[in-house]
Amino acid sequence: MSFDINNHKQVNPPPRLLMGPGPINADPRVLRAMSAQLVGQYDPSMTDYMTETMALYRQVFKTENRWTLLIDGTSRAAIEACLVSALAPGDKVLVPVFGRFGHLLTEIAGRCGAEVHTIEKEWGDVFSPDEIEDAIKRVQPKMLAVVQGDTSTTMLQPLENLGEICQRYGVLFYTDVTASIGGNPLEADTWQLDAISGGLQKCLAGPSGSGPITLSDRFVTEVRKRHHVEAGIRADHHVDGAGERIRSNYFDLPMIMDYWGEERLNHHTEATSMLYCARECARILLQEGLDNAIARHQLHGNAMARGAEQLNLKLFGNQSHKMNNVVGVYIPENVDGEAVRSAMLNDFGIEIGTSFGPLHGKIWRIGTMGYNARKDAVLVTLSALENVLRRAGHKLPAGGAIDAAMDVYANARLQEGQ
Amino acid sequence: MSFDINNHKQVNPPPRLLMGPGPINADPRVLRAMSAQLVGQYDPSMTDYMTETMALYRQVFKTENRWTLLIDGTSRAAIEACLVSALAPGDKVLVPVFGRFGHLLTEIAGRCGAEVHTIEKEWGDVFSPDEIEDAIKRVQPKMLAVVQGDTSTTMLQPLENLGEICQRYGVLFYTDVTASIGGNPLEADTWQLDAISGGLQKCLAGPSGSGPITLSDRFVTEVRKRHHVEAGIRADHHVDGAGERIRSNYFDLPMIMDYWGEERLNHHTEATSMLYCARECARILLQEGLDNAIARHQLHGNAMARGAEQLNLKLFGNQSHKMNNVVGVYIPENVDGEAVRSAMLNDFGIEIGTSFGPLHGKIWRIGTMGYNARKDAVLVTLSALENVLRRAGHKLPAGGAIDAAMDVYANARLQEGQ
Repeated sequence: MSFDINNHKQVNPPPRLLMGPGPINADPRVLRAMSAQLVGQYDPSMTDYMTETMALYRQVFKTENRWTLLIDGTSRAAIEACLVSALAPGDKVLVPVFGRFGHLLTEIAGRCGAEVHTIEKEWGDVFSPDEIEDAIKRVQPKMLAVVQGDTSTTMLQPLENLGEICQRYGVLFYTDVTASIGGNPLEADTWQLDAISGGLQKCLAGPSGSGPITLSDRFVTEVRKRHHVEAGIRADHHVDGAGERIRSNYFDLPMIMDYWGEERLNHHTEATSMLYCARECARILLQEGLDNAIARHQLHGNAMARGAEQLNLKLFGNQSHKMNNVVGVYIPENVDGEAVRSAMLNDFGIEIGTSFGPLHGKIWRIGTMGYNARKDAVLVTLSALENVLRRAGHKLPAGGAIDAAMDVYANARLQEGQ
Repeated sequence: MSFDINNHKQVNPPPRLLMGPGPINADPRVLRAMSAQLVGQYDPSMTDYMTETMALYRQVFKTENRWTLLIDGTSRAAIEACLVSALAPGDKVLVPVFGRFGHLLTEIAGRCGAEVHTIEKEWGDVFSPDEIEDAIKRVQPKMLAVVQGDTSTTMLQPLENLGEICQRYGVLFYTDVTASIGGNPLEADTWQLDAISGGLQKCLAGPSGSGPITLSDRFVTEVRKRHHVEAGIRADHHVDGAGERIRSNYFDLPMIMDYWGEERLNHHTEATSMLYCARECARILLQEGLDNAIARHQLHGNAMARGAEQLNLKLFGNQSHKMNNVVGVYIPENVDGEAVRSAMLNDFGIEIGTSFGPLHGKIWRIGTMGYNARKDAVLVTLSALENVLRRAGHKLPAGGAIDAAMDVYANARLQEGQ
């Protein structure tokens, strides 16, 4: 087979405005951070960056949890690390499913050998605390595992009352916040969460590839029961935990904690560039301030939703539980959804999203998150979509979307002035 | 807890020359590639980059294997993906252990539920094909899993005769080449390998965080028997494989193949920046030419080893099976090994490595790999080490190391001229 390296040019992706459900454009500061040169795995500057990153993500998660660190993989890797370390074969887990990522949690928990129990909601709505408490009473699980923001449906499951319920029944409380963190409220300690996993590629304005997690003392005690140090790594004696060995080496949280902690026992080789990246994502968010960032996502998400309504697009799902950072809209009848997405991408350079499973071909998902939760990004997207829809034969009031979005911004300025 | 973002400055690592066993300094081209802006997960430019990366790594591995792709995690993640997808509980695996990373393979295989059989060599040597064939006859494993280059001992296990043996006994042949690829010969197809996993942070001159793998058709047939598509992802019908479900979702190779292949079924969200990075690592290597890169590692590794001898340092292990890219040297008696490493790092900005397990505190490991397999890097390191050792009271002939290294370079030029 002949091979010509010249067929593989220097990386040079086309300019895109990514207004789908994520990944979105990375903040240029994040890209610059990743281009910093490497240092050794145990260089004091490297271990300092690791320790600092732990401190930064404690603020991001609003927690005092000592064990707040990164999993070297995408957000899905961080989910698996939390589940496989806590759930031994036969352990019961309750998963309230209200979208695709609920199904993912059941999938991953099933692979751990857990006995998975689900309750399901029609896509587009969320669970009440009572519904979850009833299921906990019935199932008596070791863990409640629930997604906070399920991008497949754009819904945000309220978590604030679930921690108290879990405590009452002695249940570990785990959530995945990949799609929601940085754009929606999250209070790890106040809400009594035991384990949280996230990702960078949504409101944190980074690429995927690193999964921040935080673990409560209760959760750490649980997973430490399954602690075993690997062969060939430490000559001195070590007492292993009594629990069943964790089914994964890469996702073994007690071993990962020994690497991030003072012991600095070698496990994987920390992905330095992604560490720089995750650290910069947190710095950007905390410099803006968490409350400001959430308010910004709410403002631009609201402008996008009001604009979309004026494009004669019907919003999907229970609007009182929508995530701030993404809106679902029904694809109008007589409009070819993929042709619209294609025109947006190829003519205007703007990406909007399709959806999965039961919503595939039925809704578009339009994001306003991270670096792209900005007025210009909202207005450019609405203007383009107005023209693409008009040319596709969809009836809409010319200029209505921009006027509606502008009204949202004007009202926000008025309220600020008060 | 009060928190001051100003305590967390912009990333700015100290300048280091990384001459340990890896990670080493990234090629600046790789760092620049990572700073390219993101595109959407299914953007044609993104899927093109994925397909191109597959083609590039086929050349790196010297294979026609269709399924040549990246695992989103460090090299350890790529190992686990290969093992957990192929080894069902109870399957027998034979691991020849000649250093720390052999132990790691047993660890990971054990977590998969496999019945792990080992043969062991004293650290510093490798196995003969006969020794491995005898063990295969005795154990009758489903898989032979062996590390090519074990950085803990600097040894390179010859693989060229093992594929034929594995074929003869119907055994899958897997190897990890993280430490060796790009600096030592590897012929995936000629040597009849069924699965190979690697990493970027050694001779490929990148950061850790992405693990290239390649899989033979025979291996793919085996893991596809365990193929199950996850719930919530595809509405149309799908026939699951008869084999036991793979114990990990994140490392499920059949699902990862569906994502990298034409089906483009959503699995994880590909880590775009690390994809750009892995692609650039391969481009750099292939532009130089594999044979040239291997010769370069041999040349500079040889210069470092000859120089080290003239520092009155005794080389560790069977020198006829040393990796090109790293040399082990005994820490001289009466010299404090960690004090020397500390002076190298803190006074000269140069990192050399310690070792693990039985070699901890007994040898240093000095690498010449990837971007740092360069004459200036070798000479600067030897000069610095000469002075640090001299000041530590170690006897050595002044200037001998540099003269020995220079002789290696002069001889190489002479041979080139012939």
